Amino acid sequence: MGPGPCNPYPEAIAAMGRPMLGHLDPEFIELLDQTNDRLRQAFRTDNPLTFPVSATGSAGMEAGFVNFVEPGDAVVVGVNGAFGERMCDVARRCGADVIRVDARWGEPVDPQALIDAHPNPKIIALVHAETSTGVRNDVGCLHTGKEDALVLLDCVTSVAGIPVEIDAWCVDIAYSGTQKCLGAPPGLAPFTASPRALDQLVATPQSWYLDLNMIASYVIGEGARAYHHTAPISAIFSLHGALGAVLDEGLESCWARHKACGQALQAGLEDLGFTLFAAEGHRLPQLTSVWIPLERLPDGMDEAGARRALLDRYGIEVGAGLGPVAGKVWRIGCMGHTARPRNVSLLLGALEELFSA
Amino acid sequence: MGPGPCNPYPEAIAAMGRPMLGHLDPEFIELLDQTNDRLRQAFRTDNPLTFPVSATGSAGMEAGFVNFVEPGDAVVVGVNGAFGERMCDVARRCGADVIRVDARWGEPVDPQALIDAHPNPKIIALVHAETSTGVRNDVGCLHTGKEDALVLLDCVTSVAGIPVEIDAWCVDIAYSGTQKCLGAPPGLAPFTASPRALDQLVATPQSWYLDLNMIASYVIGEGARAYHHTAPISAIFSLHGALGAVLDEGLESCWARHKACGQALQAGLEDLGFTLFAAEGHRLPQLTSVWIPLERLPDGMDEAGARRALLDRYGIEVGAGLGPVAGKVWRIGCMGHTARPRNVSLLLGALEELFSA
Repeated sequence: MGPGPCNPYPEAIAAMGRPMLGHLDPEFIELLDQTNDRLRQAFRTDNPLTFPVSATGSAGMEAGFVNFVEPGDAVVVGVNGAFGERMCDVARRCGADVIRVDARWGEPVDPQALIDAHPNPKIIALVHAETSTGVRNDVGCLHTGKEDALVLLDCVTSVAGIPVEIDAWCVDIAYSGTQKCLGAPPGLAPFTASPRALDQLVATPQSWYLDLNMIASYVIGEGARAYHHTAPISAIFSLHGALGAVLDEGLESCWARHKACGQALQAGLEDLGFTLFAAEGHRLPQLTSVWIPLERLPDGMDEAGARRALLDRYGIEVGAGLGPVAGKVWRIGCMGHTARPRNVSLLLGALEELFSA
Repeated sequence: MGPGPCNPYPEAIAAMGRPMLGHLDPEFIELLDQTNDRLRQAFRTDNPLTFPVSATGSAGMEAGFVNFVEPGDAVVVGVNGAFGERMCDVARRCGADVIRVDARWGEPVDPQALIDAHPNPKIIALVHAETSTGVRNDVGCLHTGKEDALVLLDCVTSVAGIPVEIDAWCVDIAYSGTQKCLGAPPGLAPFTASPRALDQLVATPQSWYLDLNMIASYVIGEGARAYHHTAPISAIFSLHGALGAVLDEGLESCWARHKACGQALQAGLEDLGFTLFAAEGHRLPQLTSVWIPLERLPDGMDEAGARRALLDRYGIEVGAGLGPVAGKVWRIGCMGHTARPRNVSLLLGALEELFSA
């Protein structure tokens, strides 16, 4: 129950046992095409260029910037947690002129402030679900005021956990991770870019590995695929399996299950006298952040010791706080296969035992 | 029997079924440490910074350049195949002044020519085992003449297949892939860098995801590990399992098995009247390149059709030729768990049936 990786769906683990296929084997290409189709359903997009980047979620972020930003481009970034900060770092390494729009950790970013931050930015970038704070940022209204800017959305923790509507929200570039609500092991970054974004691709991005011009010739298309790099076959098997589980359940049902578990957890924490960290109305069900009542811990046990006790005694991992709330806040994930009422009940029971000692 | 992915060792596949662990779970950190130890044995190095980059082999290449090359640095690259070409592309994207030392595809690069190419390059880069041609380049003598240059070696297809001696050869930066002779699925790039190389790290490389300054705080060290990005847990499980299989067999025994299979395959191909492509004395046992006697194929079957027939009738994948020998040469892998005499026998039997029709 950390902030990811979740427990993968059994279908995702089983799929990794499939016999190996070559990355140009027609059977594998068919499975890759199916995976991309399933990702389009999860992202709610018709974007042809939708595929898993061959590395973890942060490489999806890097692919999102490195293919679209040239030195001197203005990039507006909403920052209310560690992943907004990371976006600034990544964008700067592409030579961007970064304009930050800050909000306090635990609070959402004001979408209008993003729109107002610069008259004609190349990109407006935002983290949909801030894994460092458990806050959901509002995206739905961004496109109405964005003019020509490309909207880039970090969906690492949101896809399959809460509604994500890439096309309806006019998001141009988005990426996710496999180890959160998609319920697969970490290792891939599902990625999508609109045709409008692809019209503005950097010709020769500074990263060869993440160069969408070349990758597109492998991951999509009707005819023969051009080798770029060897695809992580088993990881794609697992994503294919996990997406199968999600879509068999139904995407909306999956959202509803995450919502129910998160609400039960958050209500239970408040019943135990804990104080939630994220602003009310913007709390993610799949990632709950909570102040730790350190004074209620047994003598001699500190914050790290309490997390270790949860792990050793109950087999539960929770995530430490990051940045300004390190040591004070925990981050509790209910994502993917972990988003089950039994896990919520176990954690609440464990916390009751641990904190009333 | 393509140029990778090989069939993974059963231990590598089984390991992916292990229960998921968080990337900061003490049990996982212990397994990562063991994996890094095993990699040091496979690379024959004591380099503390030895770990799997969280992406496929080509990202290992990018990590090798992006962390050490600054704009204007002279980088000498040996080019006798597709992966030497790729090195030039990657280095140029880092702003390198690339000095190519070319050899014909199928021939080895002259190490003295690499040493003589530039008076004081930042890096001399070479592909040890050219997967595009089946040629082994000589590395052992490079360090005697390199002066202050860092030697960067692509070991994607060599590690665990033929002798690799990172420390004895004074190689400063090296990377590999998991899906070749290491016998795991694709998805990681084992990487190692000498302390001497680390003294010359770029402070802020253009890639955030591959920034060794930050990654080192997670992958090695005595105390608590600093989160950088979520490690691809299941892939590391599989590498840990594959390395266990390799080291249980014994690294030298593993080299010997690859050698025996490759020699049997190459002798068998010549017995069938095929002509080997790579220069004698520099042929890789784990990757055999061979001219295809197209005139001996059944009427109406072309080169691609012959590969498809091997796949459909016999369940054997072989790799197409790349670059100047596309359509003329095949690349046949005997790597990892695929390097077994039974596979050589099956392929030779299949070729005899197919080409005498």
